Amino acid sequence: MRGVVMHAPGDVRVRDRDDPRIVEPTDAVIRVTAACVCGSDLWPYRGVEEVADAPMGHEYVGVVERIGDQVREIEVGDFVVGSFFASDNTCEICRAGYQSRCVHAEPIGALGTQAQYARIPLADGTLVATPGMPAPELIPSLLAASDVLGTGWFGAVAAEAGPGKTVAVVGDGAVGLLAVLAARRLGAERIVIFSRHADRQRLAIEFGATDIVAERGAEGVAQIKELTGGLGAHSVVEAVGTQESMMQAIRSTRPGGHVGYVGVAHGVRLPGEELFFSGVHLHGGPAPVRRFLPELIDLIWNRTIDPGKVFDLTLPLEDAAEGYKAMDERRAIKALLRP
Amino acid sequence: MRGVVMHAPGDVRVRDRDDPRIVEPTDAVIRVTAACVCGSDLWPYRGVEEVADAPMGHEYVGVVERIGDQVREIEVGDFVVGSFFASDNTCEICRAGYQSRCVHAEPIGALGTQAQYARIPLADGTLVATPGMPAPELIPSLLAASDVLGTGWFGAVAAEAGPGKTVAVVGDGAVGLLAVLAARRLGAERIVIFSRHADRQRLAIEFGATDIVAERGAEGVAQIKELTGGLGAHSVVEAVGTQESMMQAIRSTRPGGHVGYVGVAHGVRLPGEELFFSGVHLHGGPAPVRRFLPELIDLIWNRTIDPGKVFDLTLPLEDAAEGYKAMDERRAIKALLRP
Repeated sequence: MRGVVMHAPGDVRVRDRDDPRIVEPTDAVIRVTAACVCGSDLWPYRGVEEVADAPMGHEYVGVVERIGDQVREIEVGDFVVGSFFASDNTCEICRAGYQSRCVHAEPIGALGTQAQYARIPLADGTLVATPGMPAPELIPSLLAASDVLGTGWFGAVAAEAGPGKTVAVVGDGAVGLLAVLAARRLGAERIVIFSRHADRQRLAIEFGATDIVAERGAEGVAQIKELTGGLGAHSVVEAVGTQESMMQAIRSTRPGGHVGYVGVAHGVRLPGEELFFSGVHLHGGPAPVRRFLPELIDLIWNRTIDPGKVFDLTLPLEDAAEGYKAMDERRAIKALLRP
Repeated sequence: MRGVVMHAPGDVRVRDRDDPRIVEPTDAVIRVTAACVCGSDLWPYRGVEEVADAPMGHEYVGVVERIGDQVREIEVGDFVVGSFFASDNTCEICRAGYQSRCVHAEPIGALGTQAQYARIPLADGTLVATPGMPAPELIPSLLAASDVLGTGWFGAVAAEAGPGKTVAVVGDGAVGLLAVLAARRLGAERIVIFSRHADRQRLAIEFGATDIVAERGAEGVAQIKELTGGLGAHSVVEAVGTQESMMQAIRSTRPGGHVGYVGVAHGVRLPGEELFFSGVHLHGGPAPVRRFLPELIDLIWNRTIDPGKVFDLTLPLEDAAEGYKAMDERRAIKALLRP
């Protein structure tokens, strides 16, 4: 089969890779209908993370081709959405809602879903079947549920977005934009996004943002304070993962408020004294997307939400390199790849 | 009046200080019945924080001597317990339960309650009157409510201690010991304290600890994992404030679990990547003791809890220096001072 490999930072290739097969009796193999490039794929692309000849991709929707002997819930022919961590969905950690930290968790990224086929471990615990074959226009939104929507949603839940709350979102990538959508669905009263890109601002407003703040750092914090009677936001979603964005998120939050951080941290060192006196709640990490998938699929299936709008570039799998390049240069919010 | 002053690190003196007076119409002046030395007073004592001729003390119980014109709830002659931050208890932050970060918060420590008298700003929002004059044996417990009990309680609440939960406590000082008591009252199933001091272990067990772990660092974490089927505790209270204790707390917590940190952070830098992948909730800071005072006073008044047991040294105010020395040398858990 054909699949994306990152040969080295900045060097994305589409190559012949071995066809995936059932390895464990709990595996499924899916024919990938759509995959995409994640903001986190840009860390190795930019050389911030080491990479050498790595299969890429951890977001996916597709049709089940084969299942192992112990797969019970998922059937051949099902159209499925899955999370970027395989999980058994039965252990104590999964039952508490933290499937991305399942005691048997396996990162799907190591397998590479930017390909024609993919092996999905722990299929019963990882995949959720849609009610039937989706209409083509639903595919991008279902694909978004696999990571960026699930991650933005977790960020908003971790930040305790809800009725009466002012929510601020740091980061205007796909995850940040979908955190806006999530905050709106969760009933937030006011939703502020930090953004200085007109196209992203437009989409944020479409998703439910009520205010845009173009300033960053101390000036951005000052703007949030001004919008909230000097107190700061009740809830702040951090969707970048840098020292600057984490500190902007913490400083934008009122004492007793909640920071939900879902940007994969890179080089972050949180100053204990400042954090202590901030009095905020901090929660985040790799989103337990599986927790939210049934609800998200339902909202998409019923056309209540349209998170697929974050895909502003669609390419054949063979042109994956252009998808990475467009996202790296911020010409695209998010690139969908069709195998 | 006589009052404690820290002249320099390690140099505690009792001196004549000006009698406090009503400065703002919302002030009260109390005659201090009992004050005490806090673990956090040891930071400047040990030279970790700068100090020069500073009045000391932020824990107190006493009798109201004078009130300002705008004080409505507190009356002259009331026996009162107060928090170590003055708060109006009416602003939006206070109403959300974060009185230590009240928009008008003032640290009581700057005023110094290790003295015969003390000025308490924002008396109506800061002080809680007991139902009457307390029996002498209740004084230590009421004094504990002013900080160490309220702080341990907040740590346990922030860590979401409750029924069915395994709670671990890092730190066997007065706050850690009272976090054990709080976790027990909040219904925790299993309570583990990290401690290697026999006297503190005994008191921890009296307060409700079910397990003692003498190991620290990686070995301590391994012990907690072993006690919890490899997962880690649901709830961990951090009551020290060092890099080592914070990391021990975070690493002892299962994914999705809660760290309540109340040790005043000194030189702590939390590694963002590890925190991200830990998946824990982190909440803490200066305890909003005022939130809990009515409930805690009630539990003490009804003799349901006896947190005053943490005071294992009682001295006249004039001997304050010995109280600091005994705590610094860990000969005493906590020293009560009688003006």
